[in-house]
Order: sequence, then C-alpha cells, then structure tokens
Amino acid sequence: MSEIVLHNYFRSSTSYRVRIALEMKGLDYSYVPHHLRHGEHLEPPYRAVNPQGLVPALIWRDGTLLVQSLAIIEFLDETVPQPPLLPADALGRARVRMLAQMIACDIHPVNNLRVLTSLRTLFGASDEDVANWFRHWVNETFEPLEKILADSRETGTFCHGDTPGLADICLAAQVANNQRFGVDMTPYPIISRIYDACMELPAFVKAAPKNQPDAE
Amino acid sequence: MSEIVLHNYFRSSTSYRVRIALEMKGLDYSYVPHHLRHGEHLEPPYRAVNPQGLVPALIWRDGTLLVQSLAIIEFLDETVPQPPLLPADALGRARVRMLAQMIACDIHPVNNLRVLTSLRTLFGASDEDVANWFRHWVNETFEPLEKILADSRETGTFCHGDTPGLADICLAAQVANNQRFGVDMTPYPIISRIYDACMELPAFVKAAPKNQPDAE
Repeated sequence: MSEIVLHNYFRSSTSYRVRIALEMKGLDYSYVPHHLRHGEHLEPPYRAVNPQGLVPALIWRDGTLLVQSLAIIEFLDETVPQPPLLPADALGRARVRMLAQMIACDIHPVNNLRVLTSLRTLFGASDEDVANWFRHWVNETFEPLEKILADSRETGTFCHGDTPGLADICLAAQVANNQRFGVDMTPYPIISRIYDACMELPAFVKAAPKNQPDAE
Repeated sequence: MSEIVLHNYFRSSTSYRVRIALEMKGLDYSYVPHHLRHGEHLEPPYRAVNPQGLVPALIWRDGTLLVQSLAIIEFLDETVPQPPLLPADALGRARVRMLAQMIACDIHPVNNLRVLTSLRTLFGASDEDVANWFRHWVNETFEPLEKILADSRETGTFCHGDTPGLADICLAAQVANNQRFGVDMTPYPIISRIYDACMELPAFVKAAPKNQPDAE
C-alpha cells in the first residue's frame, strides 16, 4: 500500500474540509500543494492526475483518484469508522448531510475562486462587487442555517449533538473563509459558537490554512 | 404515518433528482408546486416550512423537514434499500458520489435561477451573457466528466455498471436542464448515451419536468 496523497491548496476551503477529516481519522498523508492563484492546477501535469483540474484530489493507497470533498470525507468515514463523522440513524445522517450541503452546495460553489474571477473578467466586477457577492451568498444560507440550528433540539455543542462531524467540518471551513471577506458574524451566534468549539480541537487547528506548508 | 410531501417545481433540476429517486423507490408522495419565477418560494408561508426558501424540500412521514437533494436521496436509499442507488463497496460509493457531486456542486449551484438572476440585476447580464455563463460551467465539468467516464472500466450502461443510481440521477437532470440553454452535446457521447439509457426507464420519464402537474 502506498501512502495517501492530497493535492491541495492551503486557502481552499474544500481542501481544508478534507484535511480536517484526515486529521480526525488519524491518517498520515503526503501534502502536494498547487498554487491556485498562479493557475498551477490547470497545467497539463496536474490535469493528468485530475482531469477536472480542481483541488482537493485525494490519491488513495491503492492509487484510486477521489475528488469532491464530501465524497472523499464519506469514503474516509466508511473506511476508518472511528471517530464517526455521521450519526448512526438515517434521519440524523440526513440532517448532518443537509447542513453540510447547505454550505457545500449553496455557498461555496458560487463563491469559489474561479467564479469570482469570472465575475471580474466577464462583467468587470470590482473588488467591492466581488466582496459583496461573496457576503450575499453566505448570508443567504447562514440566515436559514442559523434558524435551523436554533430550532432543533439536536443541535448541541456541535451541529448535531456534542461530537464534531461532517457538518461541523463544512461550517468551520466556511467560517474561516468568510474572514477573508469581512463577513459580519454578529447575526449568527450559534454558528459562531460551533466554530469556536471546532477551533478548540487539534484536528481543526492542525488542518487550518495558516498551518499548511504553502501558507503565505 | 402521514404521507410524504415534496415541495417542488417542475423545472428545478434538483427537484427532478428527488422525484426520480422517489419513483425508483416506488414511494407515493404529495406534489406541492411553488412557482420559482413568480417568487412563491420566498414568501412567508413557504419560509415557515423551509427557512431557506428553496426547492426541493421533502416532508418525511414523521413530519421531519429534509432539504438538499443529495441528502434526501441518500436518506431514501437508506430507508428503502431496494433498488440500491449506491454500490455496495466503499470505493464504488465514493466514485458514484464523486460523479454526482461534480454535477451537484460544480455545475448546478452556479447555474441555478437565483444566481442567473443576480448576474442580470447586479451586472446587467443579457440573455446571451446568461446562456454563455450557463454553457461555460456545464462544459467546464462535462469535459472532465466525459473523460473520467471514458477512462474507467467501471462505466457501463450507466455511470457505474449496468444499473442506474445516484450519479445517473444527477446526470439526467442536468442534461435535461441543458436543453433549455442549447448546450452542444456532441463532445459528450458517453454522457449522451447514459442520458438516453436513463430516459428508457419509467422512473426517469414519470419524474421529468414536462410530466409534472405544474408544467407549462
């Protein structure tokens, strides 16, 4: 069995999600950085590894290429069951996947680097336009996310009970990313409290953008 | 146990995904339409059901609100195991989730109605700009998706072997949506072949936008 390889970028929030899961599962991996702002991920050498040219991409021990952060994390959770990142019951799993996907499908894709760059090149968006766009889509989802967390007795120290899981991984990576665009977190006391609880955990700290080898 | 309720819009491709899964599992449900172009989903009555104001939202038999199409479909798959929508092995499940999420995370969120509307209102995008934007993001993901399908021996009649599953559901709903924006499918023979195979199946046909009660 070869080692696990993570193609990756320190600031990518989807990369951050996978790094947290690898740390929580206690899996060692080789960190291969690709500088997204320099376009390194779009060059032929990386396209030969991952045709989509995106990070993260994980090369599993048997050489299989896995992309898409949530698919990778569910694979890690099925392969290394402890500690579990999803609840044991189907409705609980649905709730955690729902919270995770509210962030992974409704915030991040609209706010990632390639979309923000397209706003500039296609529509002449300014820095201020881009920052407003970013904050708008965060708020569009964080408002109902805060309400869903507030209204549910299943919300605990973390998104679902008192142990961290898939939803917390997505939440923490998104809140960390928000800081670069000055999102006002005052309206989101529960999300903020959960983020703070995550950042008490060594896995979340070790995986954080600023603690990666390619951090600037 | 009450009946299953699906809050829904005929043309929404994420709604289409959930309808296919409900049909494949043989689950009856009550269809509640919300006219997205009239903004009905953003009004207080629906916000009281789903704080996020998006479709689809599924009310399960015990009254639980479930949102996010992939979370809903995995819940249905865990609750009604036959026919399975994911393979039995962890690497197979990772591959199917990866293919599904390439569409669900990298194409659809950037191309949904609220984002296209924002391009018009914020940046004055024309109909042609919007159509180009839509086609660009489809092609950005369909090119590597076609390559990944072509390069894998696991690709069969459908995305993963010879039975339809989660990835095919996402693929079919996306290809159907593409038709509204004139996406040229010539470069994607495998994706096209899988779409055609899906549309031979009663569940995919019955769930199709044009066969819904609110179809225009």
